[in-house]
Amino acid sequence: RYGYFGKEPLKEVKLLVCNIDGCLTNGHIYLSEDQKEIISYDVRDAVGISLLKKRGVQVWLISERCSKTISAMKLDCEVIVSVTHKLRVVEDWINKMSLSWKEVAYLGNEESDVDCLKKAGMSGVPADACATAQKAAGYICKSNGGRGAIREFAEHIFLLMEKVNSQERKLNDLKN
Amino acid sequence: RYGYFGKEPLKEVKLLVCNIDGCLTNGHIYLSEDQKEIISYDVRDAVGISLLKKRGVQVWLISERCSKTISAMKLDCEVIVSVTHKLRVVEDWINKMSLSWKEVAYLGNEESDVDCLKKAGMSGVPADACATAQKAAGYICKSNGGRGAIREFAEHIFLLMEKVNSQERKLNDLKN
Amino acid sequence: RYGYFGKEPLKEVKLLVCNIDGCLTNGHIYLSEDQKEIISYDVRDAVGISLLKKRGVQVWLISERCSKTISAMKLDCEVIVSVTHKLRVVEDWINKMSLSWKEVAYLGNEESDVDCLKKAGMSGVPADACATAQKAAGYICKSNGGRGAIREFAEHIFLLMEKVNSQERKLNDLKN
Amino acid sequence: RYGYFGKEPLKEVKLLVCNIDGCLTNGHIYLSEDQKEIISYDVRDAVGISLLKKRGVQVWLISERCSKTISAMKLDCEVIVSVTHKLRVVEDWINKMSLSWKEVAYLGNEESDVDCLKKAGMSGVPADACATAQKAAGYICKSNGGRGAIREFAEHIFLLMEKVNSQERKLNDLKN
Repeated sequence: RYGYFGKEPLKEVKLLVCNIDGCLTNGHIYLSEDQKEIISYDVRDAVGISLLKKRGVQVWLISERCSKTISAMKLDCEVIVSVTHKLRVVEDWINKMSLSWKEVAYLGNEESDVDCLKKAGMSGVPADACATAQKAAGYICKSNGGRGAIREFAEHIFLLMEKVNSQERKLNDLKN
Repeated sequence: RYGYFGKEPLKEVKLLVCNIDGCLTNGHIYLSEDQKEIISYDVRDAVGISLLKKRGVQVWLISERCSKTISAMKLDCEVIVSVTHKLRVVEDWINKMSLSWKEVAYLGNEESDVDCLKKAGMSGVPADACATAQKAAGYICKSNGGRGAIREFAEHIFLLMEKVNSQERKLNDLKN
Repeated sequence: RYGYFGKEPLKEVKLLVCNIDGCLTNGHIYLSEDQKEIISYDVRDAVGISLLKKRGVQVWLISERCSKTISAMKLDCEVIVSVTHKLRVVEDWINKMSLSWKEVAYLGNEESDVDCLKKAGMSGVPADACATAQKAAGYICKSNGGRGAIREFAEHIFLLMEKVNSQERKLNDLKN
Repeated sequence: RYGYFGKEPLKEVKLLVCNIDGCLTNGHIYLSEDQKEIISYDVRDAVGISLLKKRGVQVWLISERCSKTISAMKLDCEVIVSVTHKLRVVEDWINKMSLSWKEVAYLGNEESDVDCLKKAGMSGVPADACATAQKAAGYICKSNGGRGAIREFAEHIFLLMEKVNSQERKLNDLKN
């Protein structure tokens, strides 16, 4: 079978892994006098995450920083902080979940995201990601990090998944 | 009588219903380590709300989120949070107030606002609303959400109401 | 004597009156769950205020809102909050200080600033001021409110004052 | 030897001195009712500082303001606040470290940074620095202060250092 995405059979996205600082947030750390930090996210991205989960795509958030605020987020996702080697950590997860990289979408913005961006079945960066991350990604969002990039990438994933499903339907029609 | 807005007699706007996250606010949720959230609004929009009320237009704020901060806002409006089905909630209000949809203006930015945008006598979206909301709305603000969109929509409503009043005056002149 | 600014002798600016919400700040009110507000200003504007004071121009900040945060600002200026009628309040100050409107510079952004903008010897608005304020002002800053507008207007005042001084020197030279 | 940077032998950058308000931060001071301030920085710049340190470039942060928040920053750099005369303070440091100005990179944005910008071996300003600082600097970042300017300047320094190293290698090859 020769499909739109090459010779390999298309796979559905089962998991979105998303870098936190600069993807979920705009990268700003607000710091108060008593050394407490504040970060921000966009309601649009929270809606995007909830739409992904409704359609059966798990969402995992990942950060190199050690931050209580990130852990305190009420986005109802897996959150892993203090990650020093992203590729290793994501690969561990994937293996435990018996997923292949083809079923993983990755949204990143930093040099430390490049390895994962290259491995993932679908990869995206916010419009204001660093140059090396932009080169490694398949999809460059119009939205900046912390300003709708997850939502936009989610809608891109939904488009792909509809294509996959319609192709599978056509394939089944041909078989029957 | 054949007026500017079609065959039906024009009605004054009696109520503005406005989505909070992304219309009153810019959609940013600031989160501190102790899980407390901060949101922001623009003084321009607070002025817009106060102008609306001076001219006899009630303002109701609506949000799908459950947020103490929203309830704590001192904008002197009705605020309803944790709304899961906006159309149903707004329709309930309107019935209780003996208003028709023609007398309601609605400012929204999300897919969950589309039904109300279509029903309202006047409908608007901020410049950075999602694509489906933009398609459903009659007026697209130049201002972004949280950056003057309510003020701009209010001034648009005032313009309309002046037209309505001047037409009514002309009609009365013709009768007498 | 026929100078650059008309027949009246030029006067030095002795006082800058500046609206707070939308001129000193960007108009954003950040609100926390416990109903406490946060506002922000730009260090550039703080530098501008300090330069004005070094050159003998007093700076007064004015707001229609009643806000503890504004009062808590450490900008070392007179701050008057809860002002309902700006023109009356400023006129009172000016009389007490035995100043004329010609010696007052005014930076405003709202409809409520229009009267003062028209009366002041020098008047300015930030780039994102409302349309009616922009029409009433002599100088439209390139900077937005809360993003350097006071600094820019201060430098505009310095330019004017240098012109005034150089004209006075020339006048004195002619006399002697 | 006639190199790319003139007749003097090139020197490696050993120290980056960076103004805080408007370079590390976007210049915004957020102020709460209880007179506590919040400032913000960008994770990109924190990554830039950490890359500089990995390559043997010390980073010092300098501010004219007296701010507990700045001191509380966890960027693992020397931080000096309440500086009234930047040139004098930086010159003291350099002498104590037995460095020459040629080995110092300076990132500034204000008039008070101009002297240091002129003396430093490498000098840069964020895109939104004041006009006089821009004229004094060798490199104008595309990024604004608080939005990646340190990161961008760091990458500019790395490029220079690679040039220095490759020239030294060529020189050594010629000698042997």
